Amino acid sequence: MPRPVRALAFDVFGTVVDWRSSIARQAEAILTAAGVTGIDPFDFADRWRARYPGAVRASNEAGRGFVLLDVIHRETLDRVLGDLDLALGEPERAALVACWHRLDPWPDAAEGLRRLRALVPVAACSNGHVALIVTMTRHGGLVWDAVLGAEFAGAYKPAAITYQSTAAALGIEPGELMMVAAHHADLAAARAAGLQCAFVSRPMEYGGRPAPDAAYAQEWELSVTSFLELADALPPLLAR
Amino acid sequence: MPRPVRALAFDVFGTVVDWRSSIARQAEAILTAAGVTGIDPFDFADRWRARYPGAVRASNEAGRGFVLLDVIHRETLDRVLGDLDLALGEPERAALVACWHRLDPWPDAAEGLRRLRALVPVAACSNGHVALIVTMTRHGGLVWDAVLGAEFAGAYKPAAITYQSTAAALGIEPGELMMVAAHHADLAAARAAGLQCAFVSRPMEYGGRPAPDAAYAQEWELSVTSFLELADALPPLLAR
Repeated sequence: MPRPVRALAFDVFGTVVDWRSSIARQAEAILTAAGVTGIDPFDFADRWRARYPGAVRASNEAGRGFVLLDVIHRETLDRVLGDLDLALGEPERAALVACWHRLDPWPDAAEGLRRLRALVPVAACSNGHVALIVTMTRHGGLVWDAVLGAEFAGAYKPAAITYQSTAAALGIEPGELMMVAAHHADLAAARAAGLQCAFVSRPMEYGGRPAPDAAYAQEWELSVTSFLELADALPPLLAR
Repeated sequence: MPRPVRALAFDVFGTVVDWRSSIARQAEAILTAAGVTGIDPFDFADRWRARYPGAVRASNEAGRGFVLLDVIHRETLDRVLGDLDLALGEPERAALVACWHRLDPWPDAAEGLRRLRALVPVAACSNGHVALIVTMTRHGGLVWDAVLGAEFAGAYKPAAITYQSTAAALGIEPGELMMVAAHHADLAAARAAGLQCAFVSRPMEYGGRPAPDAAYAQEWELSVTSFLELADALPPLLAR
């Protein structure tokens, strides 16, 4: 019998916020202002995001100590710009990295999070650092009980410690924490770390194309299509 | 010229919540249920709290690694019970330590914090650990953008790193962070760490008696009598 769920930990990029549309819109404005033409802003967002999973894994393994996600976003940006043979100045590169601090929530996220917070504590468990999540939270009208995750743990997901330190900080066992994510790979790592899992489908995260981590799909404790549906489905799991 | 204030960091015990009345009320119930009579619950709360500043300083200096405030509250509780020659069982001691997770906010705190959060990010910068602050935040109907402070820093206030890591996590310089506290000693340490300071007088924190840290009083950047007054006084400091 699984334990009662005593708190929720949320992936943020793709699960709470729509990074693809938000990056495309902001990047288009920055690139246009810089006189760059002929770039599909959605393709630009996809290329940048595609370099992310490998970059955070490499950062965990590199033994260089924990670096903020801004640093990793800058490194992957420089590679994308190299791939596209685009010469951009320092101010434009910094402005592009800062776009990841202001991503718009999915339409159900703010209201769903409010309803979920009325049931149990809700924590961000993102690879985004505290400053990034705080800016995004305020931008999107969201509320967290705590911002935990990579910076708090000193390691990026999918490291087990990132999930487990979130449970520990909330004063509960890993099995009493439910990870909420739109990504099967994130949930697979959370499950391996002892957490329960809720999958939230976000079919437009990649513009309607299949998610790159589809192979990690499993039978999760919950599988829903929005935070509102999650708020409806959660109560029986709190009391058992 | 001071820098613009870009975020607020809050002391919690005594500044946001009224530990004395809350501990006295809860302790009285626990002691009465345990058959203990003849204890003034306010005196009990005062004795317990009086052991706190020395205990957290000693913990910083002991080199035993960071321990949660629950551990320190238990150690100081055991000494207070020894002083009073009270034999209490393990469940009662655990219940008393847990009282510190459920302290009532001062009457202006929830509304004031809401107004302040509309102006700038607000972070808890307490010696209370994340689980304690999260429980208290939900108990009191409060909202933080981030729960930082001792557990995040791995050191208790008044260590400089506790204040400075709060600014760093928010992505700002120490001089752009304003510490809000009812305690001159807390503010003196924050100022020494480079922060700006707002003093909020809480004359009933010690039941109307003088604060034990009155000797640390200085001319602070702001000095107010409530969070509502702070919300009125803050705007000119944001834009300069």
